[in-house]
Amino acid sequence: MNNKFQQQKEGAIKGLNDAKKTGDVDSDMVPLIDYVNSLPDYYTTSTCTGRTSLFYDPGGKLDSGWVGKWHSIVSAEDVIKALAEMPPSGRIWFMHEPTIMHIVCRDLARAGALVELARNNGYKKTGILSYKEDRVLVEVCGTERIDAPVAEEGKVLVENKYIEYLTLLANEKFKKGMQRLKNFEKALHALEERK
Amino acid sequence: MNNKFQQQKEGAIKGLNDAKKTGDVDSDMVPLIDYVNSLPDYYTTSTCTGRTSLFYDPGGKLDSGWVGKWHSIVSAEDVIKALAEMPPSGRIWFMHEPTIMHIVCRDLARAGALVELARNNGYKKTGILSYKEDRVLVEVCGTERIDAPVAEEGKVLVENKYIEYLTLLANEKFKKGMQRLKNFEKALHALEERK
Repeated sequence: MNNKFQQQKEGAIKGLNDAKKTGDVDSDMVPLIDYVNSLPDYYTTSTCTGRTSLFYDPGGKLDSGWVGKWHSIVSAEDVIKALAEMPPSGRIWFMHEPTIMHIVCRDLARAGALVELARNNGYKKTGILSYKEDRVLVEVCGTERIDAPVAEEGKVLVENKYIEYLTLLANEKFKKGMQRLKNFEKALHALEERK
Repeated sequence: MNNKFQQQKEGAIKGLNDAKKTGDVDSDMVPLIDYVNSLPDYYTTSTCTGRTSLFYDPGGKLDSGWVGKWHSIVSAEDVIKALAEMPPSGRIWFMHEPTIMHIVCRDLARAGALVELARNNGYKKTGILSYKEDRVLVEVCGTERIDAPVAEEGKVLVENKYIEYLTLLANEKFKKGMQRLKNFEKALHALEERK
């Protein structure tokens, strides 16, 4: 048994349980997170089902942030309302980011199996972010995104109709992402049952 | 000495030399590629300085492609001209993708050093894509992108002014990417000289 892995895993699960209490974990993600953490060789550190957002880029690294952020289907009305509250400077991006999961694996062999499973389930941007003897960190990530600048210096660059179109597209991608997540969970169960 | 690594490296360099002759290698990338390949523990398999494109998504995986693709600064005029030639169905995305490099490393320790160097130089999406005893593949990748849908079913969704704005932004990102590439090359030289 690898004690350091086990200790770190227990720490991560404690942190996760605190985050669940404060509502900082996507509820759609909980079954998969709990399943991964029930496996002896893996645990999650951070995860996101995917999200649509209005990202604020002030032009430097400092003080970037969000004008709006939704881990769910969102209405164009809500996006347009949030956009109206933007700061008077900097650039606003309409973004949709795919599912992302950081999963620590007990060793490289387990990491390799997870990377392969994720890629085969459509998470094409999956790889090993860092490895140490006791801790191999895999990032599971999809590719379907939207990154469209929609406002600058307080002025909206596009018509509302285009925001409506982006929102529709983002919602489609979100739904697809949720389906992929379910398929991945099933595939992980199947992999573990074959052991 | 690890013979399999050496053999595969020689094969990759042969392929690269062929690609150079047919003009299939970004000339801006050649100094860095040649430097990486001169190092005993690394070689490149595929690389791209970054590119701006009009990507055609027909709605399925089949027959996707490009209406326009530029590995350089591009004029809005050229983009608008290319967009006018789009097919009558499917979706067109205006995209800017950051620098990407696939580098094979002799072992995990070398891969780890490369990943760290790349991250410290702003390539935040860098990780190990696959590993075998003789072949650890690192993907070095930036994060700054544009993915904005601009046409659907043969109809442009945005004004020319917005295409001009996207092109300006893409060119800025391209220039930044080229600077980052130079910095990375310098940092790699410094790392190797310290050995």
